Amino acid sequence: MAIDQARAAIDKGQTPFGAVIVRGEGEAAELVVAAHNVVWETTDITAHGEVHAIRLACRKLKTIDLRGCTIYSSTEPCPMCFAAVHWAGIGRIVFGAAIADAKEAGFNELSISNQEMKARGGSPVEVVGGVMSAEAVAVFREFVARGAKVY
Amino acid sequence: MAIDQARAAIDKGQTPFGAVIVRGEGEAAELVVAAHNVVWETTDITAHGEVHAIRLACRKLKTIDLRGCTIYSSTEPCPMCFAAVHWAGIGRIVFGAAIADAKEAGFNELSISNQEMKARGGSPVEVVGGVMSAEAVAVFREFVARGAKVY
Repeated sequence: MAIDQARAAIDKGQTPFGAVIVRGEGEAAELVVAAHNVVWETTDITAHGEVHAIRLACRKLKTIDLRGCTIYSSTEPCPMCFAAVHWAGIGRIVFGAAIADAKEAGFNELSISNQEMKARGGSPVEVVGGVMSAEAVAVFREFVARGAKVY
Repeated sequence: MAIDQARAAIDKGQTPFGAVIVRGEGEAAELVVAAHNVVWETTDITAHGEVHAIRLACRKLKTIDLRGCTIYSSTEPCPMCFAAVHWAGIGRIVFGAAIADAKEAGFNELSISNQEMKARGGSPVEVVGGVMSAEAVAVFREFVARGAKVY
């Protein structure tokens, strides 16, 4: 679903990053929000897919505390988004493509992995990378093929 | 001015973090925005002083590109805010108190300094810390003395 959001973002002239927040585990799991990067649409450099999803989730659940939630991201969250996940108390990050893939597509990434942010910063968040990574990386190729604008 | 914003935030029931963005240098410098943390006010865990100031500056200047700007922050930006500064292309960060001071006041900080974020991430942003730090740290004492809520 996060990869679908990344693809939808391209169709809307945005950058190819999708994020989905789910609350609970197993059969009790429920979708909170599915969103994508809206940096161009909102003229807000902080409106990455994950930050935008977290804002929407806070608004929807009427709390800044997202404990018990998992965030699924088409690409490894950048350090801004990783730290936003930490502040929200989200328990787990699951991602597809790596920050290096976004950098290769032209984005001005800070090259610090989620594992490094977690270890150095002392965050309890669980990090699971490389899930459906081939499908996630393919979205960058579609984005680059369209000659879309990066930042 | 950033410290004044941090103090104003306490008066409004917010957390004590202020940020000011200035464009240009020397006599040509102009104030873009002065803001503070609005996490409680907006039920948005990402609405730290710096992120909020960057959002307001993008909206005011109608661009996601804040090159040529300096951000003054009452406290060293957390990794989320540091990365937001990097994405915006802001050239310089000037801060008072350190992340460790915010942690001591009770905030759930990721303990990664701006210098470490810059070095490990490969960011060109200039970092100047410890400016008016005694005045900045005093604001935390006022905040703690009021028994205000942290996250």
